[in-house]
Amino acid sequence: MKHRKKEKKVNFSPGTIKRLSLYLRKLKKIHNDDINIISSNTITRLLNVTSDQFRKDLSYFGEFGKRGVGYNVALLLREIENILGINQEWKIALVGTGKLGSALLGFEGFSKLNLKITCGFDNQKDKIGNRIGGVKINDIKDLSKIVKKQNIKIAIIATPPEVAQDVARQLVKIGIKGILNFAPVSLNVSKNIVVSNVDMATELENLIFFVKRRL
Amino acid sequence: MKHRKKEKKVNFSPGTIKRLSLYLRKLKKIHNDDINIISSNTITRLLNVTSDQFRKDLSYFGEFGKRGVGYNVALLLREIENILGINQEWKIALVGTGKLGSALLGFEGFSKLNLKITCGFDNQKDKIGNRIGGVKINDIKDLSKIVKKQNIKIAIIATPPEVAQDVARQLVKIGIKGILNFAPVSLNVSKNIVVSNVDMATELENLIFFVKRRL
Repeated sequence: MKHRKKEKKVNFSPGTIKRLSLYLRKLKKIHNDDINIISSNTITRLLNVTSDQFRKDLSYFGEFGKRGVGYNVALLLREIENILGINQEWKIALVGTGKLGSALLGFEGFSKLNLKITCGFDNQKDKIGNRIGGVKINDIKDLSKIVKKQNIKIAIIATPPEVAQDVARQLVKIGIKGILNFAPVSLNVSKNIVVSNVDMATELENLIFFVKRRL
Repeated sequence: MKHRKKEKKVNFSPGTIKRLSLYLRKLKKIHNDDINIISSNTITRLLNVTSDQFRKDLSYFGEFGKRGVGYNVALLLREIENILGINQEWKIALVGTGKLGSALLGFEGFSKLNLKITCGFDNQKDKIGNRIGGVKINDIKDLSKIVKKQNIKIAIIATPPEVAQDVARQLVKIGIKGILNFAPVSLNVSKNIVVSNVDMATELENLIFFVKRRL
């Protein structure tokens, strides 16, 4: 029974996974401060979350912490990394190396997450062959060849909106399973492909709507 | 009674506002294609949304479209812009002009949304006084003076995570009501301040979690 409980897979909310990412980020900071064992009360205070929420988020994946003892920070860190799947390195292909794409190629935060953009793609001749942040920009025509050779499963779309859907279609066709989409369009892809949208325009419009009501 | 109904303000989900942004984006495209009147069926097909969802999202703000006639595209566009508050120009202050901040200063998509980054701020001497994308980079010490003078209510934080909380505190103190936060930390601000987080690391970890389960 106990074992079953540890293995249970329920429909947790997507919010749970995003909160695990935030817990991870803060736990790393706590760990860097040389704190090894931490009480449930202290951890939820530092994480700025209710203890109910914290326990619920973790409960989907097993049992962590010991009643009366608290949490081992290093162990909890490793467990959350395992849950998220970032205990292994993930290669990422980036399509579209304009201003935003170039900034992403130079973004140093990815390596901390065991994420590595290993190849960039563009269709503009003057960009192809260049390196940005050490990453080579390839001809979009070589997308299939390079992505398959490197066995890449995750891609970032940072293209103009007009071509994003076509790029997504190509990516799915060659085996990409997850897309981080920066283009301000909603992509039509089959249900088994995971798409996260980072849409600054929408975020800003959302912000303005709520700010306007507060002025 | 009818008037009351038009004015009703209920607790719609934040998802509603983000969907309105997406509707707006697609309606602009439809409008550019010179389509003036559009049936309910066609519009929901083009917007990739159920008619129930579409009607519900709009119903919070009044009555749109005419039974048996459909929607006037230009009118609906203008109504959604009014709802979102982007029928007026909003000035934005940007703090942190590293790789990401610089990319945002060069991002041309904002002007289409009636959003304008009018000033950048940094604490690095070699950046202060420069212009990126036509926007002047000011000394962070002048934040209060410039933001108050320009009557800016919205700010973007693109600083390193270590200083983001302190920057947020300063911004709130000088009258900022909405923050778009690109730093991978959750900001503690009072409840009446609107914060939208664009956290690429969290988005990617979320993506990886779901991709891993599909491999």
